[in-house]
Amino acid sequence: MSQPLRVGMVGYAFMGAAHSQAWRTVNHVYDLPAPVEMRVVSGRTEASVAAAAARLGWSGHTDDWRTLLTRDDVDLIDICTPGDTHAEIAIAALAAGKHVLCEKPLANSVAEARKMAAAALAARASGVRAMCGFNYRRVPAVALMRQMIAEGRLGAIRHVRATYLQDWIVDPSFPLVWRLRREVAGSGALGDLGAHIVDLTQYVTGRLITEVSALTETFVKRRPLPAASTGLSATGGDAEMGDVTVDDAALFLARLGEGVVASYEATRFATGRKNGLHVEINGSLGTLVFDFERMNELQFYSRDVPETEQGFTRILVTEPAHPYLAAWWPPGHLIGYEHTFTHQAHDLVQAIAAGQDPAPSFSDALQVQLVLDAVARSAETSAWTAVEPVSL
Amino acid sequence: MSQPLRVGMVGYAFMGAAHSQAWRTVNHVYDLPAPVEMRVVSGRTEASVAAAAARLGWSGHTDDWRTLLTRDDVDLIDICTPGDTHAEIAIAALAAGKHVLCEKPLANSVAEARKMAAAALAARASGVRAMCGFNYRRVPAVALMRQMIAEGRLGAIRHVRATYLQDWIVDPSFPLVWRLRREVAGSGALGDLGAHIVDLTQYVTGRLITEVSALTETFVKRRPLPAASTGLSATGGDAEMGDVTVDDAALFLARLGEGVVASYEATRFATGRKNGLHVEINGSLGTLVFDFERMNELQFYSRDVPETEQGFTRILVTEPAHPYLAAWWPPGHLIGYEHTFTHQAHDLVQAIAAGQDPAPSFSDALQVQLVLDAVARSAETSAWTAVEPVSL
Amino acid sequence: MSQPLRVGMVGYAFMGAAHSQAWRTVNHVYDLPAPVEMRVVSGRTEASVAAAAARLGWSGHTDDWRTLLTRDDVDLIDICTPGDTHAEIAIAALAAGKHVLCEKPLANSVAEARKMAAAALAARASGVRAMCGFNYRRVPAVALMRQMIAEGRLGAIRHVRATYLQDWIVDPSFPLVWRLRREVAGSGALGDLGAHIVDLTQYVTGRLITEVSALTETFVKRRPLPAASTGLSATGGDAEMGDVTVDDAALFLARLGEGVVASYEATRFATGRKNGLHVEINGSLGTLVFDFERMNELQFYSRDVPETEQGFTRILVTEPAHPYLAAWWPPGHLIGYEHTFTHQAHDLVQAIAAGQDPAPSFSDALQVQLVLDAVARSAETSAWTAVEPVSL
Amino acid sequence: MSQPLRVGMVGYAFMGAAHSQAWRTVNHVYDLPAPVEMRVVSGRTEASVAAAAARLGWSGHTDDWRTLLTRDDVDLIDICTPGDTHAEIAIAALAAGKHVLCEKPLANSVAEARKMAAAALAARASGVRAMCGFNYRRVPAVALMRQMIAEGRLGAIRHVRATYLQDWIVDPSFPLVWRLRREVAGSGALGDLGAHIVDLTQYVTGRLITEVSALTETFVKRRPLPAASTGLSATGGDAEMGDVTVDDAALFLARLGEGVVASYEATRFATGRKNGLHVEINGSLGTLVFDFERMNELQFYSRDVPETEQGFTRILVTEPAHPYLAAWWPPGHLIGYEHTFTHQAHDLVQAIAAGQDPAPSFSDALQVQLVLDAVARSAETSAWTAVEPVSL
Repeated sequence: MSQPLRVGMVGYAFMGAAHSQAWRTVNHVYDLPAPVEMRVVSGRTEASVAAAAARLGWSGHTDDWRTLLTRDDVDLIDICTPGDTHAEIAIAALAAGKHVLCEKPLANSVAEARKMAAAALAARASGVRAMCGFNYRRVPAVALMRQMIAEGRLGAIRHVRATYLQDWIVDPSFPLVWRLRREVAGSGALGDLGAHIVDLTQYVTGRLITEVSALTETFVKRRPLPAASTGLSATGGDAEMGDVTVDDAALFLARLGEGVVASYEATRFATGRKNGLHVEINGSLGTLVFDFERMNELQFYSRDVPETEQGFTRILVTEPAHPYLAAWWPPGHLIGYEHTFTHQAHDLVQAIAAGQDPAPSFSDALQVQLVLDAVARSAETSAWTAVEPVSL
Repeated sequence: MSQPLRVGMVGYAFMGAAHSQAWRTVNHVYDLPAPVEMRVVSGRTEASVAAAAARLGWSGHTDDWRTLLTRDDVDLIDICTPGDTHAEIAIAALAAGKHVLCEKPLANSVAEARKMAAAALAARASGVRAMCGFNYRRVPAVALMRQMIAEGRLGAIRHVRATYLQDWIVDPSFPLVWRLRREVAGSGALGDLGAHIVDLTQYVTGRLITEVSALTETFVKRRPLPAASTGLSATGGDAEMGDVTVDDAALFLARLGEGVVASYEATRFATGRKNGLHVEINGSLGTLVFDFERMNELQFYSRDVPETEQGFTRILVTEPAHPYLAAWWPPGHLIGYEHTFTHQAHDLVQAIAAGQDPAPSFSDALQVQLVLDAVARSAETSAWTAVEPVSL
Repeated sequence: MSQPLRVGMVGYAFMGAAHSQAWRTVNHVYDLPAPVEMRVVSGRTEASVAAAAARLGWSGHTDDWRTLLTRDDVDLIDICTPGDTHAEIAIAALAAGKHVLCEKPLANSVAEARKMAAAALAARASGVRAMCGFNYRRVPAVALMRQMIAEGRLGAIRHVRATYLQDWIVDPSFPLVWRLRREVAGSGALGDLGAHIVDLTQYVTGRLITEVSALTETFVKRRPLPAASTGLSATGGDAEMGDVTVDDAALFLARLGEGVVASYEATRFATGRKNGLHVEINGSLGTLVFDFERMNELQFYSRDVPETEQGFTRILVTEPAHPYLAAWWPPGHLIGYEHTFTHQAHDLVQAIAAGQDPAPSFSDALQVQLVLDAVARSAETSAWTAVEPVSL
Repeated sequence: MSQPLRVGMVGYAFMGAAHSQAWRTVNHVYDLPAPVEMRVVSGRTEASVAAAAARLGWSGHTDDWRTLLTRDDVDLIDICTPGDTHAEIAIAALAAGKHVLCEKPLANSVAEARKMAAAALAARASGVRAMCGFNYRRVPAVALMRQMIAEGRLGAIRHVRATYLQDWIVDPSFPLVWRLRREVAGSGALGDLGAHIVDLTQYVTGRLITEVSALTETFVKRRPLPAASTGLSATGGDAEMGDVTVDDAALFLARLGEGVVASYEATRFATGRKNGLHVEINGSLGTLVFDFERMNELQFYSRDVPETEQGFTRILVTEPAHPYLAAWWPPGHLIGYEHTFTHQAHDLVQAIAAGQDPAPSFSDALQVQLVLDAVARSAETSAWTAVEPVSL
């Protein structure tokens, strides 16, 4: 076995917890060419990050992510912080010769994303690898979807229909958290949810979005400040309210290469939809449908069976022959959300060990950013807007 | 076109309404060898039957079913009354040379059913036809199920799993209607619901039940008399209650021919299940699943596709190539419960015109009765009980 | 009971058959204030229409629809022909003092639709009624949806998500039938399918579409002429091909009144979707979802139950307390596509008898036409396009 | 924090891998009163167990489970071997003062199970804890089911309907593995699958099975020996076949306390059912349905909502307020099979730390064994058979 891959992680909230579960697990499930070691986690507050390190299983901790750059015992920096910090950390890490895994969306702006992609390209020359964390690619059913489309099971692709529906801010009294502030999050549903379905549909179809017509909406325009909402503020009234500066919902029509037409929708106001990432692809020979809330299943319709027996087949994607699954449990014994991160860790470690570029690259992620940018501009100008090609 | 087939119907409640809808419709949807004419309906009360005739579309009416026997303009007698009257009417009708369609269950006892089957056999010699109305055979998805099993799509049958679940008497204040009285209904869930799944599973598998182990239960043993429940009674208290004399639920294990094992359950106490006729057949090569609450669908699992694409296929049974459907609407435009009776009418008219025996025959229905009888005896004796073979 | 309502129908293909089934049935299921009589059907070819009259149950037939205008024994003219003929027939019928039921879409152009709406308004003064046949309003689950939204069960509406997916022309060898020719059909998926979801979503939400951004696509641009495809043509090659002059698919984003955002898609290229009319409405308090392929069901999510018990409730819309259903079968005994036309007939007869305007009126249908027109113009100009308000 | 809980595990195949994943994870997800340490794993073959220890994350290993008994640094022995070894190991471990977690079924015979339960009772006096691993109790949806029934949401329980369907031996060429040999596995589908649904339904309803009527079947009576099937054998023919000595399927009717009637079925021959543990409980006020293949969902029907809105609610059991879930991911982000073991580990550690008895106890597991024994005897004698009460 080769040298261990020693990881340092920046950020330890929701994404940090999910990544930690993956790093803790991947060694024990897959035969990796390099064992993973969880060396250090960084955060802004000493006491909090110390507790997080203990809880999440990191050997060490620091309150300054910059210290990771100079540590000899860190090979890979895993960035799990909000989008406004990605560019600075990733570029510095790559410059320091560290491999980088960066959570999506790659950045809060195209300009930042472009710099990151350029940095990744530069670092690549010296064998340094960079990858963006679009974890839903690693749902076995999604990987199977890509495989079946690549094999021609759908024929000529006609339609893409993708929604990512959540409902966690449907209540107007839900506070103004960082994800609702443009300066930290970049955008709202668009970057948080829309980015996933843009990447996922381009990934499974192998086609890129070329132009879009979009609308965005902010249904609840002012919300209680988090302090106010948690009762820490003494005074009442609108003084304790703040402006929501991101979109609650983003909808867009799109054209993809080779004549494909598409509809996308990302929203946090679809009451009852908890993590409703739903994708349908229609081709001349068949259809595939995926819904994350039933992530172990893939629906497949094929015209390639006798007419009286055609229908949507609910494939339970838990067989050893399905992507990623030989290492897990017997058929019918489901896996969950966190497994997508374990699979992602597996693919990244494999690529690094093999001296290959992991996917999606920072350039791939920049391209997604360019789509989001076209969507935002289209919504602003109320005009069909071309997606700018990737250029570094 | 041959002579019209002139129908007289006995009874005009729920089943009578369903049969009437079928007789009104069948001419207009299918090209029948003989047009159907709705001549006369009989009932006990002149005023009521007159109103029913007008509403349901019968040319005439009578308050004495015996008059149907002597009318020259009645070719077929359709019996839609409760089970305690079937034997007398059917035997008299057959003796009078009328074709007979008799609602299921054929009779309230094996003795009666045996007499009816013997009468049908005797009448057959002079070209008189008799059929029992197990309408669920005529759900297109069920007919398709039978066809696929006959073609070997399931391989060797291993398991039958059938339930018929309803909930309309789950409330203890629901009154003691005729279906809850043994002297009229013969039995409760067993004859009303169990008869359907016995017939349906034997029909689709082509195998007969040979022995059973059963239990029956009456959860609510006394109920308000209908008069009391509708407020017609002046006094309160238990005097207005009556004994429920039939089973609320009947469950049994069974063995069918060729090594098939089976489980059956019929109940009126499955809260939330409105018409939950659910059947699953497992074979060595595949599985078929039908649920009446989604009667336009059939689930099919086949081991005969690549392993990674296996799953339950939801066949929307609405294609022209599916049984009965070429005459109806385009694919995806559903049909309903009443269509099973129209299909039944179609099959019966076709058989009569062709001089063939319609199925299920009275002997087939007697065999179902023998199964129900074995179930009832098994429940009483708490012993495995063989199903008596059909003998007239 | 008042005088009978005597119907003359124009056209007897798919829609004519569906309407006939309704006219044959409605008397026998509902207590109508006026009995319906099926007097006469018209068509272009004597022999064909004679056969159709016999099969579908009409007393008479004619090969000239104009004769219906002067017959004293026709009270209502039911128009079931392609869209290019609607205006002429409807306007003449109204002028002749006949009530009119006209299939959707009301017309092939806004200009025609406007004339029809004006004619209806003029005729109304003399008690003549006009209605457009958006039958999906009469699915009990859809009627229930409207009722629940009107009662405030969803709170403030946020999102409308509507697709109408079919797949019957996915095969490029499918012939160039009239529905694929602009001069007869007006448009393709847009008018055929899109009209339904525009009407349905406006109906259930009580809000109108105000502006749209659209794209349309024709995936297969040339198809075999019907003659060629049926082998009647002697020569081969492209000479036997013709241009498809309508859209195969139409997608649009929309804004409705009161801040609702929406996404619509109509296509005939969604492989595996047979009659996939799917609508989801998200509100601040709940969500409703309807899918025609399971037309007896309505999904309802309510925030108004304990948090741990929230979820999508599959309401089986077959209870007597549900719209239209008291007249049909017991709970759980499904109805089908054709019942929507019976319900439509019921509502129309009731309105006429009560001297009230049936809904949707021709003005309502004109408004749908204006939406379709805005969609078509938006697709052409690639610009957000306002829906013109109804003006006669 | 108290002293760590140091674990030694016996066996490292499927169950060992699942338990290891739980032990590795539980510390990092839940705030435990005692940290878990994975000290040692034992197996029969030195090389294999060494590899397993490395892969699964155990600090040490041994080829003799008896060494665990005398190690001071082992507090808990986790038994993951086949059923024929449980009694010896568990009794010795308890005698050595070690806490014990023993996989289900507790033993291969009632006699063994009784000895184990007696040993557990004896050890309890000195604060030693014993628990049997019925992991499905720890599916959040199942725990919620129990909670809702205990709160009276179903009213009086009427029906239990439970199946556990798999299909992994449906192919007759599948080899004669240890699970198909009575001397190792004790029984077939009955103990492997039936044990789970017996425990689960008794757990959620709070009622015990009192009598049963059963049938068992072995569809494929001879199979290739594993050696033969893997090609290690030089000769062909029946010499390489062996007898299947366990049941392929076990079906039984049952009565539970307080008038509940029930149907159970466990089979390995339900083609297409991969891990089809399906349970439905009907009560006078509502119904609950669970299906493991959609383990993050629970279906709930309640009569306690307006009649027109009643239906089966698909509760997505992923909310923080649901059992076990506050520690995991946001709503809609599913968990999988392995999480049941993590929850089990959590509950066991909590109980040990609190000085309380974990559930299910060995006595509870003995009671399940007594049910299985009654089933086996009923199948043999073809008679209703009472379940013997627990006595030590």
